[in-house]
Amino acid sequence: MSDVAPVLDRADANLEGSLERLFDLLRVKSISTDPAYKSQCREAAEWLVGELKSLGFEASLRDTEGHPMVVAHHDGASPDAPHALFYGHYDVQPVDPISLWEADPFDPAVRQGADGAKVITGRGSADDKGQLMTFVEACRAYKETKGSLPCRITILFEGEEESGSPSLQPFLKANAEELKADFALVCDTSMWDAQTPAISAGLRGLVGEQVTVTAADRDLHSGYFGGAAANPIQILVKALADMHDESGRVTIPGFYEGVEETPENVKSSWKTLGQTDEAFLGEVGLSTPAGEKGRSVLELTWARPTAEINGISGGYTGDGFKTVIASQAMAKVSFRLVGKQDPEAIRANFRAFVKERIPADCSVEFHRHGGSPAIQLPYDSPVLTKAKTALSDEWPKPAVTIGMGGSIPIVGDFQSKLGMDSLLVGFGLSDDRIHSPNEKYNLTSFHKGIRSWIRILDALGGPR
Amino acid sequence: MSDVAPVLDRADANLEGSLERLFDLLRVKSISTDPAYKSQCREAAEWLVGELKSLGFEASLRDTEGHPMVVAHHDGASPDAPHALFYGHYDVQPVDPISLWEADPFDPAVRQGADGAKVITGRGSADDKGQLMTFVEACRAYKETKGSLPCRITILFEGEEESGSPSLQPFLKANAEELKADFALVCDTSMWDAQTPAISAGLRGLVGEQVTVTAADRDLHSGYFGGAAANPIQILVKALADMHDESGRVTIPGFYEGVEETPENVKSSWKTLGQTDEAFLGEVGLSTPAGEKGRSVLELTWARPTAEINGISGGYTGDGFKTVIASQAMAKVSFRLVGKQDPEAIRANFRAFVKERIPADCSVEFHRHGGSPAIQLPYDSPVLTKAKTALSDEWPKPAVTIGMGGSIPIVGDFQSKLGMDSLLVGFGLSDDRIHSPNEKYNLTSFHKGIRSWIRILDALGGPR
Repeated sequence: MSDVAPVLDRADANLEGSLERLFDLLRVKSISTDPAYKSQCREAAEWLVGELKSLGFEASLRDTEGHPMVVAHHDGASPDAPHALFYGHYDVQPVDPISLWEADPFDPAVRQGADGAKVITGRGSADDKGQLMTFVEACRAYKETKGSLPCRITILFEGEEESGSPSLQPFLKANAEELKADFALVCDTSMWDAQTPAISAGLRGLVGEQVTVTAADRDLHSGYFGGAAANPIQILVKALADMHDESGRVTIPGFYEGVEETPENVKSSWKTLGQTDEAFLGEVGLSTPAGEKGRSVLELTWARPTAEINGISGGYTGDGFKTVIASQAMAKVSFRLVGKQDPEAIRANFRAFVKERIPADCSVEFHRHGGSPAIQLPYDSPVLTKAKTALSDEWPKPAVTIGMGGSIPIVGDFQSKLGMDSLLVGFGLSDDRIHSPNEKYNLTSFHKGIRSWIRILDALGGPR
Repeated sequence: MSDVAPVLDRADANLEGSLERLFDLLRVKSISTDPAYKSQCREAAEWLVGELKSLGFEASLRDTEGHPMVVAHHDGASPDAPHALFYGHYDVQPVDPISLWEADPFDPAVRQGADGAKVITGRGSADDKGQLMTFVEACRAYKETKGSLPCRITILFEGEEESGSPSLQPFLKANAEELKADFALVCDTSMWDAQTPAISAGLRGLVGEQVTVTAADRDLHSGYFGGAAANPIQILVKALADMHDESGRVTIPGFYEGVEETPENVKSSWKTLGQTDEAFLGEVGLSTPAGEKGRSVLELTWARPTAEINGISGGYTGDGFKTVIASQAMAKVSFRLVGKQDPEAIRANFRAFVKERIPADCSVEFHRHGGSPAIQLPYDSPVLTKAKTALSDEWPKPAVTIGMGGSIPIVGDFQSKLGMDSLLVGFGLSDDRIHSPNEKYNLTSFHKGIRSWIRILDALGGPR
């Protein structure tokens, strides 16, 4: 094994510059879900291309029908070094409600966090700009110390992760030869806790749907028409309420097809993590698991599917009151999938379920927002084992293998389109407020994240 | 009886000027529900004071905690002339969604309507500026022709009718001596159809409530927390869906206390009006009554109570998709009341009903938006009989006595606070799109409305 110590030292010495570069990227408002920020998404991609070129990568921006991809290549120190594809995303979530941010989401800074730890604040600090920059800065420390990288590296950064990655599958298909590697490294996940690094071996899938119910052809006065005219909010609300029974189970026909109970030994290993429902929910001001009754929060978020209403609107919602019966009502609904649940079957069954609840003189329209199946990765590959050791060397506590409630569709695409497994390593924490106001990334996550990638690359590039 | 013909001729000759004055008033954006339009509400009140002074009224603007009142007095031709209090409101509904308006809502014009009739377009043209100006212009024609008015007239215009009239009861109480008259004339209702004038003898009451459910103390990522954390939209949607059973009845405990079945003879008289469910609902693109099953649209809108969701919002509702579990969700709900339903009991029962459905670790807040009981006026008073004859003289078909689905809380206040019955005469039509984009008022409604008030004042001022 090579001597990794000078590379780690270099990363420590670089930290101030590393932060400056991250801040440059965080200042770019690359909100992919809102068409108003299209040029800023491109700006973030161009910034990354420039950064990677300066590190000696052969880097380019690749146009898609949506936001551009960034692709970069770098040889390994030796011709037989393993080939890793690193994936991250430069797009970020919207920032509304902006009034709840304590500082401008696009003016990043290192601040004192609630628990005294130093944190990097700003939209994208944890999801995913801060994370992808840990890898870029690890490469920098390597290049600056050794003049080379221990592995052959391909980098793929996308700009549509927060909006369902519509361009990703066609892009992978069209560039399969160029992008295929021995394995993928994906940095978009969290630690178990601030002391304990984690490798995620299971990810839930995701189906997004937008549903719009139309009743009358105009807004109506609830005095003249109330009681006689169909109210689209009422119709929508009834259909959505019907999705769950009293026990918290989803009632859509066929929803649980392909869902298997979690094996007892897996549940046992999760129990050793010491997580309690009260602690998990207490962090966000709640106390009682809200989903299927009789299951722990870890099981509910890692191994059970969900149906969630992510947004709803209809009628008058401004100040004061308007006695109106709206013409339309809209909801955004998503399903988290596990096991072998089929995203398109879930989508079709949901649509049929809603349609059955629409009166004959009203109508409903659906709009799809991405769909990806759940993923289960091997628990015992050599890559995973090496990474686990490398992470355990860096952090106070040994690395653990966990499940994950979120979706990273790319992992499924890497598996199905490029025949590659992924190693999911990330340095986020559960209190990072990703997708919420006041997103942050611990300075330790960033600093030790860079050091972790140095150790992982070193381990992966060493004797096989 | 006096000779009314020259007064009617004068109204005809005045029509162009009458329209110009109405347009001046319609241009004022007096949206009472939105605090941003506070000064425009005052501007409308000031304009009316000026107009009434120019007609010889002793008129003044009266400040309240909300938008100001306009009060004006004029003697009758003889000391023993009856004393009428005329009521209207100068405030208007919000105009959103503005994109659906075919013309600027505050740039009124006479345009060709869908059915070829000439219509006055603009927010407030029918509700209620156009209607109150029929009375003002009737007074003008009288003054210009006879130099006097046949009745002693007090005028009360308020500016908070569209926001629950919070200042009205205190104002009536504080000024009861000044405002009390023999009877009230209220012009905020509709004709039966374009040929048939109507006097409304029953009005539904109204209770408005805003309900906000809070779950976690921040917005959450639906991947990390979905399945474990309470979703406030789901909680709200379930509570609201529970308000109705499969037959369309409201399930809130005690809701039907004080509701009586409509007498068969009243239902029979409504049947002679020739209204069909299909025709009533067909006008707005619907076909099937949506409320309690087995009742006609006239019964549903005139004689049955309702629970309606007038607005709902929560989570992410912009373009694209955001996999968020919101911290809060909000709905605006209103109840139309009939018979002896008690507004405050309904409000309390609704709140209890929702509270029962809120998990222990979540919270709910309520905000009241006005409350008024239903009103039933006498079918056979001398005032009503004279007005019915006067209206029948003006219009192609005889006047009818009908029910009304909307609420005019002032009528209850006049009854309870000032001991006065009201005569509800208005010239709106069911396709006026009040509270909706593209509100209009038929030119015939305005012109013959003025002539109708001349005839009614003449009849009321004649031999008792």
